[in-house]
Amino acid sequence: MAIILGDNQYGKAESRLVRIVRDSPRHEIRDLNVTTALRGPFEAAYLDGDQSAVLPTDTQKNTAFAFAKSHGVQSIEGFGLDLARHFVDDIAPVEGARIEIEEYAWQRAVVDGVEHDHTWLRSGQEVRTAAVTVDASGDHVVGGLKDLVLLKSTGSEFAGFLSDEFTTLPETHDRVMATALDVKWRFTSVDLEWDAVYAEIKRLLVAQFATLQSLALQQTLWHMGKAVMEAVPEIAEVRLVAPNKHHFAYDLDRFGLENANEVFWAADRPYGLIEATLIRDDAPAAGDAWRASAGLA
Amino acid sequence: MAIILGDNQYGKAESRLVRIVRDSPRHEIRDLNVTTALRGPFEAAYLDGDQSAVLPTDTQKNTAFAFAKSHGVQSIEGFGLDLARHFVDDIAPVEGARIEIEEYAWQRAVVDGVEHDHTWLRSGQEVRTAAVTVDASGDHVVGGLKDLVLLKSTGSEFAGFLSDEFTTLPETHDRVMATALDVKWRFTSVDLEWDAVYAEIKRLLVAQFATLQSLALQQTLWHMGKAVMEAVPEIAEVRLVAPNKHHFAYDLDRFGLENANEVFWAADRPYGLIEATLIRDDAPAAGDAWRASAGLA
Amino acid sequence: MAIILGDNQYGKAESRLVRIVRDSPRHEIRDLNVTTALRGPFEAAYLDGDQSAVLPTDTQKNTAFAFAKSHGVQSIEGFGLDLARHFVDDIAPVEGARIEIEEYAWQRAVVDGVEHDHTWLRSGQEVRTAAVTVDASGDHVVGGLKDLVLLKSTGSEFAGFLSDEFTTLPETHDRVMATALDVKWRFTSVDLEWDAVYAEIKRLLVAQFATLQSLALQQTLWHMGKAVMEAVPEIAEVRLVAPNKHHFAYDLDRFGLENANEVFWAADRPYGLIEATLIRDDAPAAGDAWRASAGLA
Amino acid sequence: MAIILGDNQYGKAESRLVRIVRDSPRHEIRDLNVTTALRGPFEAAYLDGDQSAVLPTDTQKNTAFAFAKSHGVQSIEGFGLDLARHFVDDIAPVEGARIEIEEYAWQRAVVDGVEHDHTWLRSGQEVRTAAVTVDASGDHVVGGLKDLVLLKSTGSEFAGFLSDEFTTLPETHDRVMATALDVKWRFTSVDLEWDAVYAEIKRLLVAQFATLQSLALQQTLWHMGKAVMEAVPEIAEVRLVAPNKHHFAYDLDRFGLENANEVFWAADRPYGLIEATLIRDDAPAAGDAWRASAGLA
Repeated sequence: MAIILGDNQYGKAESRLVRIVRDSPRHEIRDLNVTTALRGPFEAAYLDGDQSAVLPTDTQKNTAFAFAKSHGVQSIEGFGLDLARHFVDDIAPVEGARIEIEEYAWQRAVVDGVEHDHTWLRSGQEVRTAAVTVDASGDHVVGGLKDLVLLKSTGSEFAGFLSDEFTTLPETHDRVMATALDVKWRFTSVDLEWDAVYAEIKRLLVAQFATLQSLALQQTLWHMGKAVMEAVPEIAEVRLVAPNKHHFAYDLDRFGLENANEVFWAADRPYGLIEATLIRDDAPAAGDAWRASAGLA
Repeated sequence: MAIILGDNQYGKAESRLVRIVRDSPRHEIRDLNVTTALRGPFEAAYLDGDQSAVLPTDTQKNTAFAFAKSHGVQSIEGFGLDLARHFVDDIAPVEGARIEIEEYAWQRAVVDGVEHDHTWLRSGQEVRTAAVTVDASGDHVVGGLKDLVLLKSTGSEFAGFLSDEFTTLPETHDRVMATALDVKWRFTSVDLEWDAVYAEIKRLLVAQFATLQSLALQQTLWHMGKAVMEAVPEIAEVRLVAPNKHHFAYDLDRFGLENANEVFWAADRPYGLIEATLIRDDAPAAGDAWRASAGLA
Repeated sequence: MAIILGDNQYGKAESRLVRIVRDSPRHEIRDLNVTTALRGPFEAAYLDGDQSAVLPTDTQKNTAFAFAKSHGVQSIEGFGLDLARHFVDDIAPVEGARIEIEEYAWQRAVVDGVEHDHTWLRSGQEVRTAAVTVDASGDHVVGGLKDLVLLKSTGSEFAGFLSDEFTTLPETHDRVMATALDVKWRFTSVDLEWDAVYAEIKRLLVAQFATLQSLALQQTLWHMGKAVMEAVPEIAEVRLVAPNKHHFAYDLDRFGLENANEVFWAADRPYGLIEATLIRDDAPAAGDAWRASAGLA
Repeated sequence: MAIILGDNQYGKAESRLVRIVRDSPRHEIRDLNVTTALRGPFEAAYLDGDQSAVLPTDTQKNTAFAFAKSHGVQSIEGFGLDLARHFVDDIAPVEGARIEIEEYAWQRAVVDGVEHDHTWLRSGQEVRTAAVTVDASGDHVVGGLKDLVLLKSTGSEFAGFLSDEFTTLPETHDRVMATALDVKWRFTSVDLEWDAVYAEIKRLLVAQFATLQSLALQQTLWHMGKAVMEAVPEIAEVRLVAPNKHHFAYDLDRFGLENANEVFWAADRPYGLIEATLIRDDAPAAGDAWRASAGLA
């Protein structure tokens, strides 16, 4: 037996890049966190310390900033494709590139009822994400969002579950349901109106969460994912991860007070964690679309 | 010489309390992080371990949750006053109470163009704060906000500064200015329309940040505080702490690209930190209004 | 085409469980963060909201705490196996269980030169990890550690790398190298002296980092992994993820001072990120050993 | 009435500065987080945007890095004094300087039983702190530590406390006590063996926590502070802030298991928070020793 080098990648993580478009008095902003990773025949760097095929991570960073100027940032999906294709096409030894980008949302300041030209407030907590992979398996775009924090104060139940000798949870037909949603969706196209698609997906996720009488967080996730896939035919697969951020009705009976789901303690840990994948039965192969790190090939 | 016990306090920190008002189909939410602290003749607990004058922190927590039901949460300022007065008035040994509350903002989900009755998204990053002190020095309310993240892409300068042998910073007449604002304001009244006042203050802070041609973050802070105090006569004092979240124009000349303030690297650390207090020259004494912890009397 | 439910799992994340052994005056402590997830035929919960096959996440939590008493915590690897086998063997619908555990290290307080019986200090930052999977693919144990922060002030180079038009990094033959190591290793046995093996692996990782004249972080990772696999034949595979925590020599020439690698600015972001897998060429199939979440099957 | 500028300060926060001493093959490391703030007649910067008296925060940062070379870092207390005196003595308009420094601990890697010359592991979680103030009120040094995480599995009680209608806590004579200690001590000297004093103080804090049969965390804090002040006559005052990190015995009776303080749930929030000041009755005036920010004068 021998020990061999398996999957590997290297890159520059978390370049905080802000792009301002100032072609007119009304500026635009894109606020990004860019991570690049390259894959290819880099065995010599590991086994012998030979860097001759290694484009420094510092160069990858420079490239991202330079492309933000030369190519612009129309969308994080498109910018990721620009970067990934450059590394694979223009840097000889590189066989695959993985670009992961987070985007932070800003809303224009409103002054005297009017949107301001060049001032913004950070809005919301959710982060838009894109993960672009370009390699022999194709050009892949995975869109997503994370930390979309949602809460509904009624319209959520949990009952009829399996029980064993360690089960003490009472059934409920009215509870608070809250989560910090993490969703990713795999596109079958690399040429879409990315910003419009994103807005539509977020709208659908929120609407399903709000309107479904939920019998379980699992059911809510299913309906969220289904709504997205029915609306966007270019999405082959949706993956959802949702913490069940428990809100426990505080026991006020002890103090002679009734608590009809009005006062809750919001717990930090532990929390439920529900995960689901929805996929079309005729979805094209994912290739390396989901492969984020070296170890998960 | 002898070693003596000086200032001290004890309490329950960070009770995450969510209050839902569900008197009609259109629910309301207040999402709080409540910290209570009591002051008084607690020497025996320290010197002898005698707890007979010590109301447990667990009881303080129970009280907060019970009051959320029995008194409701009209505003964090008012809820803090309710709690503080209870501890001082109803618990014999207690001489002073300090209630600090953070409130997280939620916005209603919009479904088919209509605000939803019982579903919300966490909105923005800023946290509304209140610090209420009730003791022999009076009843004090300090309102505030923190983590209000603002950015302007032009309209900010920094030039004409002092220099010494360690000064290498170039002057600039056009830069990005960004901060995560932390502001506290001391009221001279304990009976105001707290929610309306808060909204007005936030509006003024944003407007000043946006519209002032800034020669320094110091100047921006001054004008922010001044606008608030001019508009709200019941505010005697404003304290502002503002990190200068540096956005460095990335050097693209090296790659034959011009960067006319379009591409920035947003740095984490270090950052400038600017602090200012504005006060009316006839302001009443602050008493313990600003005293947050035992050590800072 | 139809939309179908793909991989899914659900469980309770981050139960902070502390187990004290107090059979003698000299107590022992194990401080854990336990996450459980179950896999199986749970389609009805998603599609119809039918919970009849769903053992609540609350029950999973209760089980972990009960097992900490009834089975004890000899090691996180062993405790994970106990829990995983219970869920798969004793809960009818469950087909697979994934148990992920973090362990925080404590060292005994030393009083008058003697180790104290029942007082500890949190020691170090590194977290020991175990991920146990029991399902039709077998019983799998992946050990690991994360956030092992290492720094060497010399003995690290980076030169001879590929360059393009965006490359501005100078070569160096003497730099600080620092990382926060995240390593996981897949065992081919489920019956080992887990604590002893862990101590040996950590020792080897540190020794390689210290003694290798590093030509690149890639090379250091390779030698770390190789040393572990040569010493522990029951390890089939090692996966390493290492941020290159950049320490930039501060430019003091501007002030007439020489900086011979004595004064550094430790940057937060961006950072290099190097990843590698080492595997034996006759390693048995991994089955679901590495499958952490629903989406990564 | 008029609105006036009250206390203010500005500076550079969180310069992450690493100093390596490499005069011999056995290197030494000091790993710091340096924050500087200046006070003085800076009204024009606020009111008029006039920077002519403002030494840029960038210059302050440069100064810290330059002094790390030219003056060295013998201790954070001494380094803080060097920096503070420079700003007050050498920069004309500056009237006061506040230098706050955190230091992170490293322990040498051990290879083949021998301490390595130039490789370290981050050790422990506690952070050593120093806060130096130089102004008209004198030269002040406040030492400290924070995030020293301690736990004892017995030897802690809580009983005999005051109760009211909201009190439900049962008494206990055997519980886990855990905290993340935050302590600051004010010196009356600016010329001590800082490293030796720090080690002695930490040793005393740990010993008191371990050996006192605690009737309350208040009592433990008192004895910690007292031991430090009795041992170090140059300390005039000690301030302690200690979260009571609750460890709740998990209810296993429900499952037919006895839990004799063996299995605990470690809660995140809320937590008790106990604060105390110990002071000598003949302590010299503190001046601005404790003044950290503009607002707390």
